[in-house]
Amino acid sequence: MNEPIGVFDSGVGGLTVAREIMRQLPEESMIYFGDTARVPYGSKSKDTIIRYSRQIVNFLLSKGVKAVVVACNTASALALTELQREYIVPIIGMVQPGAVAAMKATKNKNIGIIGTNATIKSGQYGTYLRKMDPKVTVVTKACPLFVPLVEEGLIDDRITEDMVSRYLREFRQYDIDSLILGCTHYPLLINPIQRFMGDGVTLVNPAFEVAKCLKQLLKEDGMQAEKGHVARYEYYVSDLADQFLTFADRVLPCRVDSVQTVEIEKY
Amino acid sequence: MNEPIGVFDSGVGGLTVAREIMRQLPEESMIYFGDTARVPYGSKSKDTIIRYSRQIVNFLLSKGVKAVVVACNTASALALTELQREYIVPIIGMVQPGAVAAMKATKNKNIGIIGTNATIKSGQYGTYLRKMDPKVTVVTKACPLFVPLVEEGLIDDRITEDMVSRYLREFRQYDIDSLILGCTHYPLLINPIQRFMGDGVTLVNPAFEVAKCLKQLLKEDGMQAEKGHVARYEYYVSDLADQFLTFADRVLPCRVDSVQTVEIEKY
Repeated sequence: MNEPIGVFDSGVGGLTVAREIMRQLPEESMIYFGDTARVPYGSKSKDTIIRYSRQIVNFLLSKGVKAVVVACNTASALALTELQREYIVPIIGMVQPGAVAAMKATKNKNIGIIGTNATIKSGQYGTYLRKMDPKVTVVTKACPLFVPLVEEGLIDDRITEDMVSRYLREFRQYDIDSLILGCTHYPLLINPIQRFMGDGVTLVNPAFEVAKCLKQLLKEDGMQAEKGHVARYEYYVSDLADQFLTFADRVLPCRVDSVQTVEIEKY
Repeated sequence: MNEPIGVFDSGVGGLTVAREIMRQLPEESMIYFGDTARVPYGSKSKDTIIRYSRQIVNFLLSKGVKAVVVACNTASALALTELQREYIVPIIGMVQPGAVAAMKATKNKNIGIIGTNATIKSGQYGTYLRKMDPKVTVVTKACPLFVPLVEEGLIDDRITEDMVSRYLREFRQYDIDSLILGCTHYPLLINPIQRFMGDGVTLVNPAFEVAKCLKQLLKEDGMQAEKGHVARYEYYVSDLADQFLTFADRVLPCRVDSVQTVEIEKY
């Protein structure tokens, strides 16, 4: 089963998930799609996010993928159930694996979640966490400026430190011991977030757990690539702005040679 | 000619232009379209912006508008020439009126321009300014974080002051005496920008000049609404997120009662 895995995100953030899949499943080929024309999803409504995600899954299927990873927390939170109902191909999202990872990490059952407006409003992380353990305490906060700050390259910067302290201040009142980075851009802010929260708080990056889930799924279904298979990666975007390559170069372990543009509304 | 004026923007920012048209042309009806599903345009490529703008003009024409205002600097800079070539209906953009206003304001012919990445990269403001006076000195700076800061409501805030001083610092080296606010969100940052630049610099809001241009165009072509005509305003968006109404309430002189969603890709 050497067909590729389809991975998509609203833009470039999902490359942090692609990176994790490359590391943990080095023999699997991948088709990455970034919806750079319609990014961001985090401020959009559920209907729009479902419609956009459906078009992307159709595109990925036209490329012959054997499984799909929704490498975007917002699309996972708002569209995954719909997609799983509509398609036969296995589809994995960020939220459930992220919640599992947070449950493993927490000792006192007080878990914090940060993400986009849409992800936080959906309450999906909380739903999964409470399903695993109804006694868990969940504290959430939307951090809409984090993505633009990362995309402006202000990672270790006093403005970012300032926004981190404003957004995360509330968590200090609750004795949380693990914090889910519920947006694919946030792992890039791991340093300022860890500095503010202190070493007592574990930062949970769902990407790591998503790659693990994918590995297990492929194994269970006998869908893994053959041993020694040389993985190929293809990158597609809905708008070819310069930013994609710049970001890819910062995030991925391998060079992206070419990126192709897709008219995604046609799918 | 009581048909409405069509006004569009990538999102909510164009409401600052709609406001100016309401003030200066109180008898004209208006159809406003905000492309909230695909906002922002400022980081997108020319091809995508032209494609999106074309769909919106088609939608506005289906509503029977007699003229179109591209109330978005990025779409004006990248798509206006194309749109004017393709359609018979009169279409006005932000850039030329903005450049005219800046030329009126400047005494020393040193003009600054701020805007999105795409607007600044297009060089359109500079082209128009130099066409009017080849001796003008033009200094430009893209300020991609201004829009997210405004949308997060951080108007009079130390983080915004900090970003203003970083982005605009360069202008201090040049003796500019007028600064074009080349993005429809920026007039909302007029206070921190004026504080940083000092009273010697005139901030130019193209919206005011655009409404003036529109008035003149309607008069010349005999397309004005009849005297005493009661204007009606309709609002359409491509994604119905809560933000539109919140922003409209902050910006417009009248209450927005209803907003309708349009599947803009179908136009």
